[in-house]
Amino acid sequence: MISSFSFYHMRPDVVESPHCARQDSLRGLMEESGLPSLLVTNLKNIAYLTGFRGSAGAALLTSREAVLWVDPRYTRQALEEAHGVQVIEERKGLLTAVGEHLKTLRVRRAGYDDAHLSCADFARLERAAGLRVRFVPSAGLVERLRVVKDEGEIAKIREAGRITAEVFQEVVRRVRPGIRESDLGAEIEYLMRKKGAEGVAFETMVASGPRAALPHARASSRLLGENEFVIFDLGAILAGYAADMTRTVYMGEPSRRIRSFYNAVVEAQEKAVQSVLPGARAGDVDTVARRALAGRDLARFFVHSTGHGVGMDVHELPRLARGERTRLRTGNVVTVEPGIYSESFGGIRVEDTILVGPAGHEVLTPAAKDQWVVE
Amino acid sequence: MISSFSFYHMRPDVVESPHCARQDSLRGLMEESGLPSLLVTNLKNIAYLTGFRGSAGAALLTSREAVLWVDPRYTRQALEEAHGVQVIEERKGLLTAVGEHLKTLRVRRAGYDDAHLSCADFARLERAAGLRVRFVPSAGLVERLRVVKDEGEIAKIREAGRITAEVFQEVVRRVRPGIRESDLGAEIEYLMRKKGAEGVAFETMVASGPRAALPHARASSRLLGENEFVIFDLGAILAGYAADMTRTVYMGEPSRRIRSFYNAVVEAQEKAVQSVLPGARAGDVDTVARRALAGRDLARFFVHSTGHGVGMDVHELPRLARGERTRLRTGNVVTVEPGIYSESFGGIRVEDTILVGPAGHEVLTPAAKDQWVVE
Repeated sequence: MISSFSFYHMRPDVVESPHCARQDSLRGLMEESGLPSLLVTNLKNIAYLTGFRGSAGAALLTSREAVLWVDPRYTRQALEEAHGVQVIEERKGLLTAVGEHLKTLRVRRAGYDDAHLSCADFARLERAAGLRVRFVPSAGLVERLRVVKDEGEIAKIREAGRITAEVFQEVVRRVRPGIRESDLGAEIEYLMRKKGAEGVAFETMVASGPRAALPHARASSRLLGENEFVIFDLGAILAGYAADMTRTVYMGEPSRRIRSFYNAVVEAQEKAVQSVLPGARAGDVDTVARRALAGRDLARFFVHSTGHGVGMDVHELPRLARGERTRLRTGNVVTVEPGIYSESFGGIRVEDTILVGPAGHEVLTPAAKDQWVVE
Repeated sequence: MISSFSFYHMRPDVVESPHCARQDSLRGLMEESGLPSLLVTNLKNIAYLTGFRGSAGAALLTSREAVLWVDPRYTRQALEEAHGVQVIEERKGLLTAVGEHLKTLRVRRAGYDDAHLSCADFARLERAAGLRVRFVPSAGLVERLRVVKDEGEIAKIREAGRITAEVFQEVVRRVRPGIRESDLGAEIEYLMRKKGAEGVAFETMVASGPRAALPHARASSRLLGENEFVIFDLGAILAGYAADMTRTVYMGEPSRRIRSFYNAVVEAQEKAVQSVLPGARAGDVDTVARRALAGRDLARFFVHSTGHGVGMDVHELPRLARGERTRLRTGNVVTVEPGIYSESFGGIRVEDTILVGPAGHEVLTPAAKDQWVVE
């Protein structure tokens, strides 16, 4: 039995909400792409455009309307959270409902997010929409808007970054040989929540000794040893926005060689951070980091790119990588994270989340880099 | 530039590994479905069939071979973890590589998981495979095997369940009015990790007072109050296997009415658990719970179904819901979780993870239900 109702939802604070402005910007991009309608199925894009943060939903934007379909589990939440959209509770399948709606609209072209729609859901959509609607793969449109953060978004990332830095500085005081990597990981996540984060933006990495040389090491059951590096890669998530930070510490009395490696990475990172300016090319930030390491004959150990955008996703645009010609813009938030890895010494990486401001950069993960020796 | 290599991986312990047997069972289902080849893209299904637990990969099974494609981030991990498959490191796009491989195999029909493949990836696959291959939507084949757990899987769920129960019993001792829901959530997750879990199988729910009446309440910043219920819905994940448990406690001196509500839910849950036997119909377990509540005139407050399968996913088959005719089998693991919800008293739910054994059921989340009053 179908039992749905629709309800036009307009909150008194809708004028203050950024969501309507975002929907209007998206309408601009849709017009450029010749799309009279766009189906949004990536849940982060739905949250960005409407404020709704449930774990299931589908939204449709046309020049005149914005509709959000949710199943009965999320009706109440959608009515509370969503701005500038008509909320429809749907029991028979969200994509079928969208297709039927498109049919009644007599729309001939509909964009859809081919990177965030399964073949099975697409089949349901096509079946319900009938033969008149032509579906156009249009992944990435909303993501183009998300690259430039507004004040509200920046405030959330700044707070997530502050918590991340604070938690690291508390946990690092407890670091010593004999502690288990995964216990430090658990403490990091616990403290983030206690300080008001929703949780971790990604699985916390605590990689010590030879594991520091692995690019994607989680926190394992390994006990920290003496005279070795530990890489901490961590980030809180708060109101849907992530921060991302890495610090490396050394347990024991570092040799001159170890000291020079660490200082080279910090210097490369700080030079690259200085080059984060509105108008700079993304690839040039990567070049700055790479050249700084090359000057110490360490470039061959830097095996990944320098950074990436951060926001609702921990990895988003722009990429700070070799050859990237995109120019940085005020409101971009990016990581800068050069690192060097070798089986001989393990690994060293230093990373901050950086806001591109009108007059330069702001470090959003303000944790010390000079207290890196734990004895 | 393409730079890939392939490596046939056969570990000495491959005879002990359950993965080859699972692949052979899947070949049986493929034959029944007329599929000479099957593309597996759901990462949990890949882990089930091969042991590889990375966050990106694609596997192809034919009558004669099993191949796993991974990108360079996961080559080492795949070589360490995967059993009974040829591992291929791939730099140019996993689905393109699968398509090209299908082309060389001269296979005419290939099943694919339409529920776990995006339209964009499907387009890449089709483009590379050429016109000779016909792709057949085949979601759910591996899931049919996963419904019956083997000894190794049961051992993991049992351990996840033991940790879950232990953590609840430790945390419940700290429950009192004035504590924040989210702080209890953070402690639950911290303790699970300290006890060896990989983390939580789902976001821990701590819902107090009126929030206990919401079906999908997370832990919020609400402070627990006096004379109200708190629902804890929690589960550890361990080696990829989940447990799922709910307990409800009351803060204060319960009235006779409150006491009768709580006892009615526990009684309904225990009767339903008793009915979990090999050969019983899934829908009949639901009926037992519903009738027990109806006997107390509470059935109208029981607004969801009685349970679901648990394993690599927290929600999998079989569903214990009205009208489900599937018969339970030895090796099924299911939840039994009746609950009642109302704005007048909040909510009460009691849930255990239950193994269907040859001679009856085993409760895998052994936490007390009779110490439910916190004063």
